[in-house]
Amino acid sequence: MGRTADYTNERCSVAATLEVVGDPWTLLILRDAFAGVKRFEQWQDRLGVARNVLAARLKTLVSHGVMETRRYSERPPRHEYWLTEKGLALSPVLLTMAEWGDRHVYGRDKSPVLFRHKTCGCAFHPVLACEACGQVVDRRDIERAGPQDLTAPTVGEALDAVKIAAE
Amino acid sequence: MGRTADYTNERCSVAATLEVVGDPWTLLILRDAFAGVKRFEQWQDRLGVARNVLAARLKTLVSHGVMETRRYSERPPRHEYWLTEKGLALSPVLLTMAEWGDRHVYGRDKSPVLFRHKTCGCAFHPVLACEACGQVVDRRDIERAGPQDLTAPTVGEALDAVKIAAE
Repeated sequence: MGRTADYTNERCSVAATLEVVGDPWTLLILRDAFAGVKRFEQWQDRLGVARNVLAARLKTLVSHGVMETRRYSERPPRHEYWLTEKGLALSPVLLTMAEWGDRHVYGRDKSPVLFRHKTCGCAFHPVLACEACGQVVDRRDIERAGPQDLTAPTVGEALDAVKIAAE
Repeated sequence: MGRTADYTNERCSVAATLEVVGDPWTLLILRDAFAGVKRFEQWQDRLGVARNVLAARLKTLVSHGVMETRRYSERPPRHEYWLTEKGLALSPVLLTMAEWGDRHVYGRDKSPVLFRHKTCGCAFHPVLACEACGQVVDRRDIERAGPQDLTAPTVGEALDAVKIAAE
């Protein structure tokens, strides 16, 4: 999470996600990756972010397996950054963020980018559904299934386990 | 967004959301608010965050209409922070973040907090559905409905309009 917050002693999946992608620039880097951006200079042009900041964020995303590098030129050596399956799995986070900004900052259907659900042809606005039964849910339909498990690993321990498993 | 990123010249609902809630601590403050936390000292105990940082984040959330204060003691004057409807509308962002951390950091169903869908009784894992037709969607079922509209207001302009409308 960089300099301003350390969540590694938390035992929480939200904190675990923030530890990987909660940096102020990282979610915009990922947003652009979903829009097809793959090269360092493209991100720099779009975001106006400092080169050292961008390089550090991309390195972190690669180290966590959210993106992977693919060589596209041998001489000079150059590579692109591609979202992995783990990175692509972040699309619900970005789509629900876009939906909230659309509704609560820009106003419904007034946002700069609109999405369409190809199957039904309507403007796409995401709602949450239960993976098990497929039914659309409201937050009131969900309950905690038990108290927080204090024997569960902290965010830091869980991230260490991910890295060890990847080695 | 604090010191490290300025998204106000972006034209994007993701950036608009990050401008309001993208600060490193803010999403954990909101997570705890969804778990029932309403008082300053409770957040401080749970997060171990500096008092000035916590006070600034709560003030920002109130100024954006994500939380509101309610007086619970007259002498001495004390107030609680409650999520507004606009704040409650952030639950899909937090639930999709929790799901990603659950799957990709802790491992499926190994996270410290589990949720249950009350209607079907199964462990709750969110997937996205289309509000219009109710069908569960994959990111490949969604397309942009047009190029980015460069006449749309920037994040800064849209946030100004929200504030003027609230006055």
